[in-house]
Amino acid sequence: MNKHIVLLPGDGIGKEVMKAARLTLEAVAERNGHTFTFEEQLIGGAAIDERGTPLPDETVDAAGKADAVLLGAVGGPKWDHLPGAERPEKGLLGIRKQLGLFANLRPVKGFKQLLHASPLKQEVVENSDLLIVRELTGGLYFGRPQKRTEDGTGVVDTLQYTRKEIERIVEQGFESARKRRKQLTSVDKANVLESSRMWREVVEEKKEKYPDVEVEHMLVDAAAMKLVTNPAAFDVIVTENMFGDILSDEASVLTGSLGLLPSASLREDGVGLYEPVHGSAPDIAGEDKANPLAMILSTAMMLKHSFDMEKEADHIEKAVQEVLDAGYHTGDLSVTNGTVLGCEAMTKKVIEQ
Amino acid sequence: MNKHIVLLPGDGIGKEVMKAARLTLEAVAERNGHTFTFEEQLIGGAAIDERGTPLPDETVDAAGKADAVLLGAVGGPKWDHLPGAERPEKGLLGIRKQLGLFANLRPVKGFKQLLHASPLKQEVVENSDLLIVRELTGGLYFGRPQKRTEDGTGVVDTLQYTRKEIERIVEQGFESARKRRKQLTSVDKANVLESSRMWREVVEEKKEKYPDVEVEHMLVDAAAMKLVTNPAAFDVIVTENMFGDILSDEASVLTGSLGLLPSASLREDGVGLYEPVHGSAPDIAGEDKANPLAMILSTAMMLKHSFDMEKEADHIEKAVQEVLDAGYHTGDLSVTNGTVLGCEAMTKKVIEQ
Ligand SMILES: CC(C)[C@H](C(=O)O)[C@@H](O)C(=O)O
Ligand SMILES: CC(C)[C@H](C(=O)O)[C@@H](O)C(=O)O
Repeated sequence: MNKHIVLLPGDGIGKEVMKAARLTLEAVAERNGHTFTFEEQLIGGAAIDERGTPLPDETVDAAGKADAVLLGAVGGPKWDHLPGAERPEKGLLGIRKQLGLFANLRPVKGFKQLLHASPLKQEVVENSDLLIVRELTGGLYFGRPQKRTEDGTGVVDTLQYTRKEIERIVEQGFESARKRRKQLTSVDKANVLESSRMWREVVEEKKEKYPDVEVEHMLVDAAAMKLVTNPAAFDVIVTENMFGDILSDEASVLTGSLGLLPSASLREDGVGLYEPVHGSAPDIAGEDKANPLAMILSTAMMLKHSFDMEKEADHIEKAVQEVLDAGYHTGDLSVTNGTVLGCEAMTKKVIEQ
Repeated sequence: MNKHIVLLPGDGIGKEVMKAARLTLEAVAERNGHTFTFEEQLIGGAAIDERGTPLPDETVDAAGKADAVLLGAVGGPKWDHLPGAERPEKGLLGIRKQLGLFANLRPVKGFKQLLHASPLKQEVVENSDLLIVRELTGGLYFGRPQKRTEDGTGVVDTLQYTRKEIERIVEQGFESARKRRKQLTSVDKANVLESSRMWREVVEEKKEKYPDVEVEHMLVDAAAMKLVTNPAAFDVIVTENMFGDILSDEASVLTGSLGLLPSASLREDGVGLYEPVHGSAPDIAGEDKANPLAMILSTAMMLKHSFDMEKEADHIEKAVQEVLDAGYHTGDLSVTNGTVLGCEAMTKKVIEQ
């Protein structure tokens, strides 16, 4: 197959881990007879520095025409003084909205080599394997009005959804659950929000179409508790944008494997943007210390979700698992024995596997 | 001193723990020469059953005239089928708003007898002692519009604040920090929300008045992570209503002491409503199995915050600590050795101390 992939390295260690992704994908293409073409574009702080905006038009154009997009990381102290609208994160929010990437998939799995680095007790966290499906282009993030009153004495943000937006993300939740352990937890705040009450109705409607999936409703405060007390009880969580932001970050630290977590942001036609959950880590940028595994696992998500290359994706996931099993790790992973590798050497190991 | 206290037992174990609170306060009054008068009113499911509404006018009137209000717990499966506006929780939201209880104080402390019941590793959670100051009468909970579009294809909730509302809760945060370890973490989502940007500005302004308090800003997603990875790093967290709802419930399970956590909801003049963080536990209601300690500790918060009776409050807190030290506990606390007491016997023990 021929696929065109846009690479957005972004800032900090984004550049290094993107190199790892590209090398991995080149190896996959070669061994499986695919042709992947790559095109690099600017986003975030790097784009601010070169073009004066976190999301240049060329980037949106190129990403819009690609079969998939890979993103490294954006942001850093260098741009922290800028006013809201000009900051690196705006590039991220902008590309999600402009490409229509409505579904953010964040799997959280415990790698047994790293469970000891979890803040949770081993018996609480082991067997955790959950997926958060977060709505990504609606809600408080994009609702209008979002402004101060004219006299500056008040302020308003708007949590806004169309029924269609709720329907498509709820369906994504059911579809994801169907491919996993068939348990869906829909998280809302239906005892307070009207949007949550519509959300609950939509879930009740859609569940008729998915009789094989068991579905429960949970309030967001209860979900925030249960993620800590019993994360292994969850399979798929589906929720709106802001709740998803909070819960997916909470979930990301449970297993001690933050440096290994990939994510996907999907459009209705399956085109997607894939990125590691970790940030741009400016403190170690350029030192070949970055952990490329979350980025590499993001390419596996890309192969699976955007290119239907299940087998190739599995190979990458297995290779990562085997490299960890063999005792290799990067400096960020608090593994007590084994061999510490730099970003490049780790990438080579994975490719060898 | 003469004080008039309105008691709202509510539902489930609310009734039993309220009895415990009253007995405790009667003992405090007797030993310290105070006169406390009590008046019982209906709220929640109990009010729905007797009056057809979760918050009867008499309750609001009585609470409005009291020096302080104690609340047990509201809700239960019996009322789960009711439509949103008629459910027990509406009583809670209504009384907060009608009494102007804008500041919710939720301390989270680890009792060493219970740390082993924490989902977190001992070394992560020990020394945790934090206070969440949550805005309680604004934001998404009460902003308008909150409705569907006429054709039913869309829905909107409104996150609304006046600058004054932000100022008074931020000041409460600084005041609380000043009485503790003088570290304030202001939690917002300033990279997305305009209300958060105003919030940040207000914090920056107010900090001039509190040079003794160290203040930091943290994004809500980062705070949700850090509560799990390093809860001991926090002293006081101040945040808006919905973020506070999620973070305070997340925080409440960290130390394994949910059955011991009190809370206060304060009005500007110091009148307050005090309630345990736990729910109505309908499954054990009426069996003398409820843990009265969170309710009893809520009375201590009342004595301190609404009546300026620091000494009396300390006595209660010490008594609870001593009873735990002596190996007594209730069935909900997973203490492996020691003596299990019922609700009444536990209350007696605390009073004896
Ligand atoms: C950078 C920020 C705007 C973004 C968000 O809140 O969506 C980030 O936290 C994320 O989760 O990808
Ligand atoms: C019952 C519910 C409306 C309430 C809230 O969200 O405020 C509860 O969760 C709380 O925190 O007291």
